[in-house]
Amino acid sequence: MNTWRDHRILDLFGIEVPILQAPMAGASSHEMAIAVAKAGGLGSLPCALLNEAQVRSELAEIRAQVPAAPLSINFFCHRPPEPDLVQELQWRERLRSYYLELGLDPTGPHPSSSRNPFDAAMCALVEEFRPAVVSFHFGLPALDLLSRVKATGAKVISSATTVAEARWLEGHGVDAIVAQGSEAGGHRGIFLQEEITTQLGTFALVPQVVDAVSVPVIASGGITDARGIVAAIVLGACAVQIGTAYLYTPEAKLPKLPKLHRAALRSPLAETTALTNLFTGRPARGMVNRLMREVGPISTLAPSFPLAGGVLAPLRAAAEAAGSDDFMSLWAGQAAPLAKEMSAGPLTRLLAEQALEQFRSLGECIGSVSRPSAQCAVGDAPQSGSRHVHRGAS
Amino acid sequence: MNTWRDHRILDLFGIEVPILQAPMAGASSHEMAIAVAKAGGLGSLPCALLNEAQVRSELAEIRAQVPAAPLSINFFCHRPPEPDLVQELQWRERLRSYYLELGLDPTGPHPSSSRNPFDAAMCALVEEFRPAVVSFHFGLPALDLLSRVKATGAKVISSATTVAEARWLEGHGVDAIVAQGSEAGGHRGIFLQEEITTQLGTFALVPQVVDAVSVPVIASGGITDARGIVAAIVLGACAVQIGTAYLYTPEAKLPKLPKLHRAALRSPLAETTALTNLFTGRPARGMVNRLMREVGPISTLAPSFPLAGGVLAPLRAAAEAAGSDDFMSLWAGQAAPLAKEMSAGPLTRLLAEQALEQFRSLGECIGSVSRPSAQCAVGDAPQSGSRHVHRGAS
Repeated sequence: MNTWRDHRILDLFGIEVPILQAPMAGASSHEMAIAVAKAGGLGSLPCALLNEAQVRSELAEIRAQVPAAPLSINFFCHRPPEPDLVQELQWRERLRSYYLELGLDPTGPHPSSSRNPFDAAMCALVEEFRPAVVSFHFGLPALDLLSRVKATGAKVISSATTVAEARWLEGHGVDAIVAQGSEAGGHRGIFLQEEITTQLGTFALVPQVVDAVSVPVIASGGITDARGIVAAIVLGACAVQIGTAYLYTPEAKLPKLPKLHRAALRSPLAETTALTNLFTGRPARGMVNRLMREVGPISTLAPSFPLAGGVLAPLRAAAEAAGSDDFMSLWAGQAAPLAKEMSAGPLTRLLAEQALEQFRSLGECIGSVSRPSAQCAVGDAPQSGSRHVHRGAS
Repeated sequence: MNTWRDHRILDLFGIEVPILQAPMAGASSHEMAIAVAKAGGLGSLPCALLNEAQVRSELAEIRAQVPAAPLSINFFCHRPPEPDLVQELQWRERLRSYYLELGLDPTGPHPSSSRNPFDAAMCALVEEFRPAVVSFHFGLPALDLLSRVKATGAKVISSATTVAEARWLEGHGVDAIVAQGSEAGGHRGIFLQEEITTQLGTFALVPQVVDAVSVPVIASGGITDARGIVAAIVLGACAVQIGTAYLYTPEAKLPKLPKLHRAALRSPLAETTALTNLFTGRPARGMVNRLMREVGPISTLAPSFPLAGGVLAPLRAAAEAAGSDDFMSLWAGQAAPLAKEMSAGPLTRLLAEQALEQFRSLGECIGSVSRPSAQCAVGDAPQSGSRHVHRGAS
């Protein structure tokens, strides 16, 4: 029988395997959440790019197919920026030559960016649908909204990119913390400051967060295969959040992961990612494309989140129509090349099985203590690992 | 009896525990190498800041105390830059206000930087002393020098910061590869390109390098405690290289780790590091201090390695005399806060024992397969972990 030694996250969320499907706005869908839920993991529905009607529709699909499964609903909770005309004009000027190259009017209109923060209307949906987990990115919403979410019985989680953010989240009552290492694809959850040169890798972040807080820690960033799951648990996490690996599933085709993004994931481009603020105004990890190379992945000219994307939208659309990913965000984490092409359900099951198998293989020589072998790691008293057991049992 | 399952690096170098003390020019010393060697790890002597007479003297000390112990000697193998007057003037101009603030003449002389690449004279010392391992940083030396090193029977290792660098090193005949994740303190080993925004974290780099090459992989970057050692091995490494943890040992006081650097390591400064090229011209990870904050940690104005440090030297000296670390490199990795204050020998032994204990605890429930427990991870067939066993046994 295969079981997990640390049951804190399993018990907290009511799931069977300690794998959270990362909410990836624009790439995740109800199909992905359903598949992961059926495999015993925690499916997630990212709502940042959806309006109320769309959230309602996606949730209805999920509830119809997996009515009893725990589900995570994810929201951004940034403060919407004041429009800044000077900022916008500077950004337009920086992009002017690209507009001209693509035959576009550099002074023409552009769509506004559609990433909305969690608000009262979305909170009402949470109260109506009562998901097992509500996940936030960029900190937490205002106290009144947070209280309403917690009053539904939902477990609240959010991402920390530093030890200070983890402590802040614990102090504000989260039930678990996603320690998001710098390897992670997509938007950094960073919220207490803006400096990204000091962001920590998963290897350094996870154990420091585990030592700093008493709530369970979910590791994310660079975890794409079973080795990553086991290593994250060894570092003190009791679950993992996996994003990029699910971009390689057919469920990521729906509703709208662009064809060019999918093609890039399967090309050598996937070997080279960087943090960039060009596409939205906030730092996010994506494959390096022409815009990132030529402007530099981080620019002080990019307007505040999410406004940067508006001015880029006409460029992206024109280039995409011509088969070019030059101006499109190509989110991916640093371990993308380790991903496998398979459906989200079988992928979740395979990762869980392989991780358990690897745990077993790590201890498989224990039986040979009486006949020591040079190939085995055996010792006497448990140390760091034992803390999990104690915590898990408490 | 405690033993390690993967013996490739142990056998290759003739050591007892799979821990390499990172060569840290300016902080490591013969005392540190001797202590680590006595504990069964691989002690290292960094030679980048030493002249021939100093290398000879350090090696004599080590050989006197641990005559039979394997030792690693480390060299930089950068190409010395052509002096560039324009570059130097720009850098002086950028630093001019600091010179004035400290009462220094901004046009006055400054010492030349003393980091020397591996050359024929150092190669002759390798031929004379015949260390078990010769370790390079920034790639490999010219083929004729490399051939002479290999002809001594020394095992050759070097650092890779990308999968491409790992493949290149394997193609050029190294015996093992240090996969240096971006969490690592001190100089990045990066040598095939200069772009640091795409450098990989340990969690993403190690498994990708392991999959790409057939020589043994040594993980480095963010490994400060036993959890890190076990996680690195889980990710596919068969040994670890540890640097920052040894900065907290009394052996790091000798010969000249500055008092202010040691104080910073024990302060909240150690929680915040960034890659910077300001101090030498090449990217290296250090604690964020005033110069890094005010100039930005990466500047295109910093002259080529190692020339940037020359112009900074008078600033550093004047500030240091006044008790300030404003202009001093404060190398440290991202997991510095996990370090313990203890001597290098006991630290090496403790890390090894705790890692073995953690391996055991991971498998400690195997005996309960017949009575399954919710606290245990058990499975059927070994997966990734088993590859180590196969490789180790081959």
